[in-house]
Amino acid sequence: MNRFWMMAACLLILLSCQEGSGVDPLQSQVEELQNEALNSDLAWSLLHALTTEVGPRMAGTDGDRRAVEWAHSIMESLGFDKVWLEPVSFPKWRRGSESAFLVTSYRLPLAVTALGGSPGTDGVLRAEVELFDNLQELSAADPAQVQGKIAFINDRMSAGGAGRGYSEVVKGRVMGPFVAAEKGAVALVIRSVGTDNNRLAHTGSMDRPEGREAVPSAAISNPDADLLVSVIESGKSMELELQLDCGLDGAATSYNVIGEVTGSEPDAGYFAMGAHLDSWDLGTGAVDDGAGVAIVMAAATMIADQPERSRKSLRVILFANEEQGIYGGKEYARAHGHELDKHIAGAESDMGSGRVYALVATVSESARPAISELAGLLEPLGIEYDPGRKAFGGADIGQMGLLGMPLIDLRQDASLYFDIHHTANDTLDKVNKDDLNQNVAAWVTLAWFLVNSDQDFSTE
Amino acid sequence: MNRFWMMAACLLILLSCQEGSGVDPLQSQVEELQNEALNSDLAWSLLHALTTEVGPRMAGTDGDRRAVEWAHSIMESLGFDKVWLEPVSFPKWRRGSESAFLVTSYRLPLAVTALGGSPGTDGVLRAEVELFDNLQELSAADPAQVQGKIAFINDRMSAGGAGRGYSEVVKGRVMGPFVAAEKGAVALVIRSVGTDNNRLAHTGSMDRPEGREAVPSAAISNPDADLLVSVIESGKSMELELQLDCGLDGAATSYNVIGEVTGSEPDAGYFAMGAHLDSWDLGTGAVDDGAGVAIVMAAATMIADQPERSRKSLRVILFANEEQGIYGGKEYARAHGHELDKHIAGAESDMGSGRVYALVATVSESARPAISELAGLLEPLGIEYDPGRKAFGGADIGQMGLLGMPLIDLRQDASLYFDIHHTANDTLDKVNKDDLNQNVAAWVTLAWFLVNSDQDFSTE
Repeated sequence: MNRFWMMAACLLILLSCQEGSGVDPLQSQVEELQNEALNSDLAWSLLHALTTEVGPRMAGTDGDRRAVEWAHSIMESLGFDKVWLEPVSFPKWRRGSESAFLVTSYRLPLAVTALGGSPGTDGVLRAEVELFDNLQELSAADPAQVQGKIAFINDRMSAGGAGRGYSEVVKGRVMGPFVAAEKGAVALVIRSVGTDNNRLAHTGSMDRPEGREAVPSAAISNPDADLLVSVIESGKSMELELQLDCGLDGAATSYNVIGEVTGSEPDAGYFAMGAHLDSWDLGTGAVDDGAGVAIVMAAATMIADQPERSRKSLRVILFANEEQGIYGGKEYARAHGHELDKHIAGAESDMGSGRVYALVATVSESARPAISELAGLLEPLGIEYDPGRKAFGGADIGQMGLLGMPLIDLRQDASLYFDIHHTANDTLDKVNKDDLNQNVAAWVTLAWFLVNSDQDFSTE
Repeated sequence: MNRFWMMAACLLILLSCQEGSGVDPLQSQVEELQNEALNSDLAWSLLHALTTEVGPRMAGTDGDRRAVEWAHSIMESLGFDKVWLEPVSFPKWRRGSESAFLVTSYRLPLAVTALGGSPGTDGVLRAEVELFDNLQELSAADPAQVQGKIAFINDRMSAGGAGRGYSEVVKGRVMGPFVAAEKGAVALVIRSVGTDNNRLAHTGSMDRPEGREAVPSAAISNPDADLLVSVIESGKSMELELQLDCGLDGAATSYNVIGEVTGSEPDAGYFAMGAHLDSWDLGTGAVDDGAGVAIVMAAATMIADQPERSRKSLRVILFANEEQGIYGGKEYARAHGHELDKHIAGAESDMGSGRVYALVATVSESARPAISELAGLLEPLGIEYDPGRKAFGGADIGQMGLLGMPLIDLRQDASLYFDIHHTANDTLDKVNKDDLNQNVAAWVTLAWFLVNSDQDFSTE
């Protein structure tokens, strides 16, 4: 009896050892990577360095040049196998001084900032204001109503699902300057495309359609837009005084900074993960897109540090000049479109440091089981698989997606993102280190899974 | 039996009617006033008018002058029995352009604002920075360490009870400019005294002690202070460039605007309720102290509208230049100190529109039961009586309190107050109408109770 139980116990121990050694090695590697990511200082220290040592890095500025140098040298020091630059050219836009005043029975300075790409006002411009609820209303206006005035698009972006979201409201910023010009306005002022109530204006680019003229264009903060509306509704006489010293200023060249962690089979393809290195000039670009830069660099570094190389490669692309027209992403697609088949898949981190909550993939049907397996690995991080949606890829990586590259999104909580998006408030204090590390854990999981997978994800 | 029950029922009905007609008439009046206040548009429309039609009203400016005119004419139109102005003189301080740059391997504009009373920099001043954790540390510093540099006081105000609160941290703003001068600094920069993380600096006055020199002094926003600390800690070489076009500029006269709702016995004394009419110049002063102005004016108007006059009078005092040294409050105490016995009690609304949560009173022991009765009337508004604390009275009304006037506080939730205090963010959108009306309901209760009470509250 005693011996029987002894043997039974031994058998049980053996069986459980057997089971232990039977754990999927990928899963245990991922657990280790996630654990390391969640407790790491790497992403935070990269972001700290980028925002403190480099600072703002608007495309074509000296800050942009220093950012490229910084990224290049940091990637080399972090153990990437190859790091290189690919040139990206674009029209350079310059921002100088800018101011706006509400002029009524008093004169009040407003929180204002020129839209990226806007021409300047050539001194001080003063005119009456004509209010429009949104771009559609301006588009439908009788030119006689707008002629010689400053058109004011008062479209409010709402947080959450109710109300008008970013993609609707941003049309006023993107196309408003051209529509206002066609209607004979002397300038355009828009309510900032943002969800906050701070006296800080949200910049952002207007479009650059061929052959269309734009008027000088700027955004004012939400509280300033509220005030304008109040004064207009009160029927008091009122003018706006606008001074924008800005404009296009020749051409500039910056660089996509690309780093590779080369796999054991260099021809087996690579997973491309991106973020954009440029930022707006008003803040230090900690959230947009310093966080993304830090997340993908930290995740790739962890993979470079693995004792053994994966079969496939990992490519980190820090895109140039996303903000003023996705120049880096478009240039990458132009230069690498013929290598589409080398790109296993692509993904981009460009929504700050909000926690990842969903996995979305645009891949072949046959790759769905593999994505489900990936979803299982992400689940412990609080991430759910959303099979019903289409991946967006991010502005830059999305350009390769348009050519057919499989896309994967790690969707982030963006509930605070549009409070500070494109404002002076985009600084390091807005980033939560734990949330940043949850992103790194998700990205290192995604990357390690893809570079070790034999699955073909391509959609065709 | 039937008849017995009939008679019993009649008796019950008669008794309950008796009880009904026995309800304290004060209590039913207060219930009606509270109900009216909670559903009124008056305070909101007053605040809307003050912030939209008048705008910022820094002491001695044209906005200040217009605010006095506005308050005078509005009080007359609202049915106050007497409205008059009492002159208040003070040194005029002027703010012109202001800028600061962090100069290191890059040059970054900081969110900066001069402290009220600061001298200007006379052009651009550029110097190294010496960091101090707080005023005490600067006070203890070896002058050799500070000589020729910009002293930087990096004292962070905490929200809530933990950490350093306003009264501690504000010492750096109030006295720092003089201590920095004594140590040989060329300028002072302080971390904003505020609880937010916005790129908006908090202004506020420095003291004006006799015979002591001050250096040019300014506050930078919390995120900018964080960045300065990061750069200093990184050991990178760094300077600050400061340009403050501001300074004292002769003398100015403004006015305490006083309105009275006269009681049926004009010699029976008055309850003095105050707020300050001046604001800082960066926002529209909606919270500090437009809200207080609207609250006390609305409450007084409701009392002026009552069908019958109370025995005692109500006095509303909108104080001049609280922000730069409590000039209006001090002048009122100088001019009216000899009428102390006419002032039943005093109270001030100067903490924005956060809901009232506590009643605090500094009155005679014999008046405690009356205060308890008042507390019972305030209870339905969610206000608790805190008998253990001493009333502060507010900066202005507190000056009469120093002479012995009984003081009553309606303490407000201030959890968001120091996020926007003295910044460009002090605008109408920060005020919640329901909260504002809860304040009006509390103030009309307090006022109606006091002008109808026979109690002597005086502490001596």
